[in-house]
Amino acid sequence: MQQTPWEYRFAHRTQRMGSSVIRELLKLTEQPDIISFAGGLPAPEVFPVDKFQEACNVVLKDFGAQALQYGTTEGYRPLREMIARHTARYSVEVSPDNILITSGSQQALDLIGRLFINRGDRILVESPTYLGALQAWNAYGADYVTVASDENGMITNELEKALRTGPKFIYVLPNFQNPTGMTLSLERRLQLLQLADKYGVPIIEDDPYGQLRFEGEHLPSVVYLDSQHRGPNGGTYSGNVIYLSTFSKLLAPGIRLAWVVAPQEVIRKLVMAKQATDLHTATFNQIVAYEVGKAGFLDEHVKLIRRTYHERRDVMLEMMDEVFPSEMRWTKPQGGMFLWGIMPEGFNAADILKRAIEKKVAFVPGAAFHANGGGENTMRINFSYTAPENIREGITRLGLVLKEQIRRP
Amino acid sequence: MQQTPWEYRFAHRTQRMGSSVIRELLKLTEQPDIISFAGGLPAPEVFPVDKFQEACNVVLKDFGAQALQYGTTEGYRPLREMIARHTARYSVEVSPDNILITSGSQQALDLIGRLFINRGDRILVESPTYLGALQAWNAYGADYVTVASDENGMITNELEKALRTGPKFIYVLPNFQNPTGMTLSLERRLQLLQLADKYGVPIIEDDPYGQLRFEGEHLPSVVYLDSQHRGPNGGTYSGNVIYLSTFSKLLAPGIRLAWVVAPQEVIRKLVMAKQATDLHTATFNQIVAYEVGKAGFLDEHVKLIRRTYHERRDVMLEMMDEVFPSEMRWTKPQGGMFLWGIMPEGFNAADILKRAIEKKVAFVPGAAFHANGGGENTMRINFSYTAPENIREGITRLGLVLKEQIRRP
Repeated sequence: MQQTPWEYRFAHRTQRMGSSVIRELLKLTEQPDIISFAGGLPAPEVFPVDKFQEACNVVLKDFGAQALQYGTTEGYRPLREMIARHTARYSVEVSPDNILITSGSQQALDLIGRLFINRGDRILVESPTYLGALQAWNAYGADYVTVASDENGMITNELEKALRTGPKFIYVLPNFQNPTGMTLSLERRLQLLQLADKYGVPIIEDDPYGQLRFEGEHLPSVVYLDSQHRGPNGGTYSGNVIYLSTFSKLLAPGIRLAWVVAPQEVIRKLVMAKQATDLHTATFNQIVAYEVGKAGFLDEHVKLIRRTYHERRDVMLEMMDEVFPSEMRWTKPQGGMFLWGIMPEGFNAADILKRAIEKKVAFVPGAAFHANGGGENTMRINFSYTAPENIREGITRLGLVLKEQIRRP
Repeated sequence: MQQTPWEYRFAHRTQRMGSSVIRELLKLTEQPDIISFAGGLPAPEVFPVDKFQEACNVVLKDFGAQALQYGTTEGYRPLREMIARHTARYSVEVSPDNILITSGSQQALDLIGRLFINRGDRILVESPTYLGALQAWNAYGADYVTVASDENGMITNELEKALRTGPKFIYVLPNFQNPTGMTLSLERRLQLLQLADKYGVPIIEDDPYGQLRFEGEHLPSVVYLDSQHRGPNGGTYSGNVIYLSTFSKLLAPGIRLAWVVAPQEVIRKLVMAKQATDLHTATFNQIVAYEVGKAGFLDEHVKLIRRTYHERRDVMLEMMDEVFPSEMRWTKPQGGMFLWGIMPEGFNAADILKRAIEKKVAFVPGAAFHANGGGENTMRINFSYTAPENIREGITRLGLVLKEQIRRP
């Protein structure tokens, strides 16, 4: 290790930088002989490569100088208009001025932290919740109050107690949650809104997977239900809920494009914050995504994604039934990319992972997703990335490890 | 204006979000009838559109699934290797592990702020200095100590006094500085290093324009001189200087690709910080930039950029000599994209700008580039973006405004 003047100069906030679990685990997925259920990666087989090729050619031919130039911080207006139409169709009526394009949803979470979190502010999150949000907000000194979840998502009967601790906002992933794969029931969505309204606490709805339902009935988004119940005009955006979504799961994560729906006064400040962090999201990527998506391609393409993930989930559940020890429980998501494994109390998934890696299979230990500790006996298992034949082999390997560890005399 | 629960919830750091001068001015440049010297935009005529088209096709054909997938936070390794070779050729020998790919240099500045700046830390900057750095670091509560500059850059005779105030680091743009266009002389580079070493204060060298010299002799970078004078092995990276550069000026800003050269312990923490802010820079853009740059294209292409900017600077200087009032002074940069206009004391460039916009010409008032106030009588004028015939027309308009305002009875 070099010794340099920089190492004495790190700001105190760097002490809150956690161990980078996801990053270290993504490295494992790069070893070709490991079957990894650890990453949160979409199936590469469904990337619309030809469509991108076509779009890149059109964009560079017709808009080359614009696509390669600096752009506005808000984002490419035709893309924002396209997202506004998409949002109106699936949820609430919004203006393009309610939309900011971000460099992935992770940036939306970071900018929200920058805008709203004073050191020591309490954020209400599900337990478990999305690790990326915790990483983003830890940097701003957030504390957390957690509400446990079950197969119907956040247990809203326990919400009131948490709301009375004075959280700054509620963060919820209602559809096929990362990490558990579970979906917040309609009844609980309404209860969440009613209690949030009672205590005057606003909501951030993170919805990367809402379009990826391959089974069961679509549930209305929290932002839509809010507009119905609290907005001045039913169906029009009321501004109480900030809504996040992304092209990472619908098109491709490697272009880093996501968006925020928020009241205009929030968008204005998000724009100022984003300007200071990266000026704007890549113009080229935005114009290409618009070109790919503009003629209804997304609606067609998402069907292929749903079919692919449906098949992979089915194969995974079937294999788990076959090879997992009876002491294990796991969720059965109706969409998205993840399911959640629960070992008996007292077992530690991090220990199991070490053994699993020896056997060339990987997952994410669940403890990292728990803002205030717990969950050592849980694991997140991704079913979207791995081809069916490798899911069979990987779950077989994992089943052997689990039996060996859980039934060890 | 909607009234929403969010407006009562902004964090106190949002109070430091300045008026977004650059952003508001970029909006002006979108009015087609204004000749704007305000933006910091490269000439769109030199964007290698065909080369990008070729590269996009190759990348999507041969690496489609990889290019559209999530990537590592550090960045695409072949691109980091290419940058390491480039750095070794022009400056110091570094490993790819000393390099982090960022989403534009603005992100590098933001991550550096996140890593090193505690509220109230003093940063030593030139006066004037790059506005984007001030915006990035204001968000972390930075204070500034400034050192004045002249036609040879930072006046290093005034540096010692500033160093004795205990700054956390020195931030310097040695080549064709934004905003003044001035270059730090070799003698002053050596004096800067000697004084930084005496007080043990490290340096951040921001070098977006170093390759854009169209006149005079190339000067060795600060990071190179440091390695010669302080490193254990001459020519090898010592880690005392963090060096920033970008593809925005060499290829195109719309792909948002830049890099940081830093000691590995700093890179490791920058990676953790970047993971929390945007996971990673767009994979697609990185592989495309590698494909564009890998066979020596940059060295050829930069010659076209130099010729183009040389011509535009010449036209601008020639016109200024002709039409600017004799009370005005201005710099004569040997490279880069900007020059600096200085009116007599007592005139205010912001007032002049209002009149200039009426006459359909624009620049950036210089006060915004001064960390601790001053510079009301100065202006940044961009010569890279505007075609020669429009430079003639725009400078003619600006000359009339300046004469009218400065010589007003």
